[in-house]
Amino acid sequence: MLLGEYLIRRLQQLGITTIFGVPGDFELPLLDQIPPQQWSGSPNELIAAYSADGYARMKGFGALVTTFGPGETSAICGTAGSYCESVAVLHIVGYPGVRAQTKGKILHHTLGDLKYDITQYTAEVTCAATILKNAEEAPDEIDKIIKAMIHHNRPAYLGFPVDLQTTKISTAQLNVPLPQSLNMKEDNDLNDCKELAFTITDKIQNSRAPIIISDGGATRNNIEPLIQELGDMLLCPMFTTFMGKGSVDEQSPLFCGVYGGKGSLPDTIKTVEGSDCVLWVGNFPSDFNTGGFSENVAPENIIDFQRFEVKIGHEKHSANIKAIFMELIKQIKDRNLTAKYESNLSCIAYPEYKESEAEEITHKWLWQRFSSFLRSSDILITETGCSQAGMMEARFPSGIKMFTQAIFGSIGFAPGAAVGASIAGKELNGQGEKYKRMVLVEGDGSLQLTVQALSVLQREGLIPVIYTVERLIHGLHAPYNKIYSWNYTALLKVLAPDIESRSYHVSTAKELDELMKDKEFNEATCPQLVEVMMDEYDCPNSVQIIGETAARHNAG
Amino acid sequence: MLLGEYLIRRLQQLGITTIFGVPGDFELPLLDQIPPQQWSGSPNELIAAYSADGYARMKGFGALVTTFGPGETSAICGTAGSYCESVAVLHIVGYPGVRAQTKGKILHHTLGDLKYDITQYTAEVTCAATILKNAEEAPDEIDKIIKAMIHHNRPAYLGFPVDLQTTKISTAQLNVPLPQSLNMKEDNDLNDCKELAFTITDKIQNSRAPIIISDGGATRNNIEPLIQELGDMLLCPMFTTFMGKGSVDEQSPLFCGVYGGKGSLPDTIKTVEGSDCVLWVGNFPSDFNTGGFSENVAPENIIDFQRFEVKIGHEKHSANIKAIFMELIKQIKDRNLTAKYESNLSCIAYPEYKESEAEEITHKWLWQRFSSFLRSSDILITETGCSQAGMMEARFPSGIKMFTQAIFGSIGFAPGAAVGASIAGKELNGQGEKYKRMVLVEGDGSLQLTVQALSVLQREGLIPVIYTVERLIHGLHAPYNKIYSWNYTALLKVLAPDIESRSYHVSTAKELDELMKDKEFNEATCPQLVEVMMDEYDCPNSVQIIGETAARHNAG
Repeated sequence: MLLGEYLIRRLQQLGITTIFGVPGDFELPLLDQIPPQQWSGSPNELIAAYSADGYARMKGFGALVTTFGPGETSAICGTAGSYCESVAVLHIVGYPGVRAQTKGKILHHTLGDLKYDITQYTAEVTCAATILKNAEEAPDEIDKIIKAMIHHNRPAYLGFPVDLQTTKISTAQLNVPLPQSLNMKEDNDLNDCKELAFTITDKIQNSRAPIIISDGGATRNNIEPLIQELGDMLLCPMFTTFMGKGSVDEQSPLFCGVYGGKGSLPDTIKTVEGSDCVLWVGNFPSDFNTGGFSENVAPENIIDFQRFEVKIGHEKHSANIKAIFMELIKQIKDRNLTAKYESNLSCIAYPEYKESEAEEITHKWLWQRFSSFLRSSDILITETGCSQAGMMEARFPSGIKMFTQAIFGSIGFAPGAAVGASIAGKELNGQGEKYKRMVLVEGDGSLQLTVQALSVLQREGLIPVIYTVERLIHGLHAPYNKIYSWNYTALLKVLAPDIESRSYHVSTAKELDELMKDKEFNEATCPQLVEVMMDEYDCPNSVQIIGETAARHNAG
Repeated sequence: MLLGEYLIRRLQQLGITTIFGVPGDFELPLLDQIPPQQWSGSPNELIAAYSADGYARMKGFGALVTTFGPGETSAICGTAGSYCESVAVLHIVGYPGVRAQTKGKILHHTLGDLKYDITQYTAEVTCAATILKNAEEAPDEIDKIIKAMIHHNRPAYLGFPVDLQTTKISTAQLNVPLPQSLNMKEDNDLNDCKELAFTITDKIQNSRAPIIISDGGATRNNIEPLIQELGDMLLCPMFTTFMGKGSVDEQSPLFCGVYGGKGSLPDTIKTVEGSDCVLWVGNFPSDFNTGGFSENVAPENIIDFQRFEVKIGHEKHSANIKAIFMELIKQIKDRNLTAKYESNLSCIAYPEYKESEAEEITHKWLWQRFSSFLRSSDILITETGCSQAGMMEARFPSGIKMFTQAIFGSIGFAPGAAVGASIAGKELNGQGEKYKRMVLVEGDGSLQLTVQALSVLQREGLIPVIYTVERLIHGLHAPYNKIYSWNYTALLKVLAPDIESRSYHVSTAKELDELMKDKEFNEATCPQLVEVMMDEYDCPNSVQIIGETAARHNAG
């Protein structure tokens, strides 16, 4: 068996059955070993990295292949985003042959020097990085890198010299199983959590009004079902944050809204800030996630669950997040605990949907309108900016899969990630899931960064519905904020002339409302793009609040 | 005066009157200070970096502005290319305010940590990097970074916290002049070169057959006119390389072709490899530049001129490249030296142009066909791959400006660089130059990486003529080499619907020949795109040779 095949088989064992990337001469022998149906060529490396990220958010793990030098540096913004947002992606990087690296001759794709090192930057945005040196140690080295990626749920980097890609090795090591997720036995046994779970259960039992906030840590650690189970058992109010949006069932009567400080609804603020026991899953107090640092929850009332640590007030305890949740659920069940909430649940998470009275499409109306358009079989991806913030105002159907890049905030991420998520959705459907549509909502400025992703998105996986929301330039009417006009409704046909597609241009709330009710449009039998015209100075309420408070903070 | 304005005025003093970039919240106050006509917004950060590179190749220096985090990492492949190819670009990076950096709160665009450092990777691809810390030292710090960029002719990195962008400073330091190019007084006085020039002049005088090879060092050090002057004085054969193509007058009878080892024409090989005194300007022995290491010139016959060093055989001497050339020209003039070339110049640099006999458009025909299409008022940019290699076979008119990315080889560079070069061309026309057309030749696979650059290219600067050469996938018929079909002839209209443009689709040599003769097409009164259909397994001869020898080398 060839070493390249070993790597591919290891990835298959993790469920990675589509690999993204851009071919280059230092990785061709590896690409030759990838089954054609398991390769998705990307229009550029940044889109490859975003696609692998979107794929990993659906299936747990993703991978991309690029060349070293220009290929890896073009992808690095995507890898940095995966690192920041905690997504497990393996970046496989084609290198010149091991001996060629030592011959002292200048090769293309280098900086013109004779260096073939992992750069410090790469090391900063991955949890593990190596360049293979010889065939003997390579299988161990590959496993080590993959295990680190699984353990930390963050990107890893594997430099793969072209000559080693076709070196023969034994198949024996393939039979040593890889962990499929955070390994509890290794990190923290359930037994180790008993005492800690006991303390936390006591706290809940003695609390006047416990609540759950499902924050970034929910999706980052893939424990959404455990969180839902805990909430359903305690019958306590459940919230998400900007980062956690989509991680709990928003159709449940327990769901009480998105908490992000001053930008939140009054009922949400009252219940969260009034609680004496906040079970906070992966608290991530960044500017975007806290309404520009306008949250106001007393630290002593917070029990914060992170991947490897639980913080009770200011006290830190080592714990495996999956293990502590499982043990907590067990103990709460044993004690038959239910939250003694002082009043009935009275949060109104979302205002009811009303027909728009205005002629124009306002942010106040648009995002709530999605509440009845979205379906549980959708994958929904929003982009940093207005679509990300605005979608907080939509109430999601149960079971919808939604994500965005909440911290790193790289515009252009969404179309690339949609490619990967769409392909993953199709693969998961083969395993009994039921994803039917990809809904991508994107501003015009952001779309221009990675527009070529639409070429692939139309061809692969689920049927996409794309919204291009134009003129979302809030704040300044400065010349540098000018976005060039494109003919958006002609884009799909140009980037995939051989694929049937439909494009719409809507300027009034009535037109958009009718389109969103239309049966054929809802069925989405082919890719559909809707260009939505909005006022250039309008924006979601939360964007205004975050913008103002963040600007004050950042200015020092 | 505000500190942001100080920076902009310093850039203006270097002739940088257009700055590229993508706006972000940490740099808005700086952008407010850039005169609107001096800002060119880019569709994404990588294109901004390529544009600044193309601008700098025309005008000496370039600049781009991005945010830190996603902005800078998206641009870093472009900066790495500028570093590798020796192009002086200042990357200005917006950071959170100085105090905000120390508040211990997580901000968007970070990795979710609290770090605001220059990464090692950035340090590796710049000659100098700093993040401003306070207003007092900032003007000195800015000058230091700019001077390093000029001295090394390589990119530099300036982190600019958002609060400092509007801090008031004195205008005094603006009157301290900046060097406009490699500063001879500081580095190496003309006097220091006298002895070295004497030794070299002796060598030339005693040589049987001196020749000049104008390699990467010509354009990297902006000494093309000095090289031409030296050649015209010596009346010796002049050559370029892959990297040096376009740096000497190809209409001169002294010009004898492009030398790149075995891929070169037989006469070229004979004259270069037979010379006993090779004046080699910036020898850069990379794989692409040497026909895959197939050059064969005895090291003891080479006098190699680098930016800060001259190597005579194996002996190294410190010298400023500009100073040594000026002194050399002076001494040769004094001695009234002319090369005693053993035979008359008999090199035939390029076969004569013939009408194509084949129906289909072959590489053998296409690139030579450009010889009579190109004009001295053109800027010509080719892309890594077939257009870069193929264009070696075209004989250029005198005075044409041509460049490509010869070492780093990042596909997608050309459309971005064309934007910057086009704007620079227009600005230079205002200073008495005469650039009229931008000719961009690009493969379909490469175009897909940075296609959105065409949106800006159509609007700014010179009138572009774009060739999209399709199906240039040589070698393998592997599924990963598949490039998605786009409707290329509809691209210009979609990306700039408000701009008049023309698009052509040609499949036969006759059609293309007629188009290239057509008066209206030649005048190029609006952007024109030509889609050229070619056989997918055909390629330029040199690509085949480089591919074969490089593959052997790289495989170890």
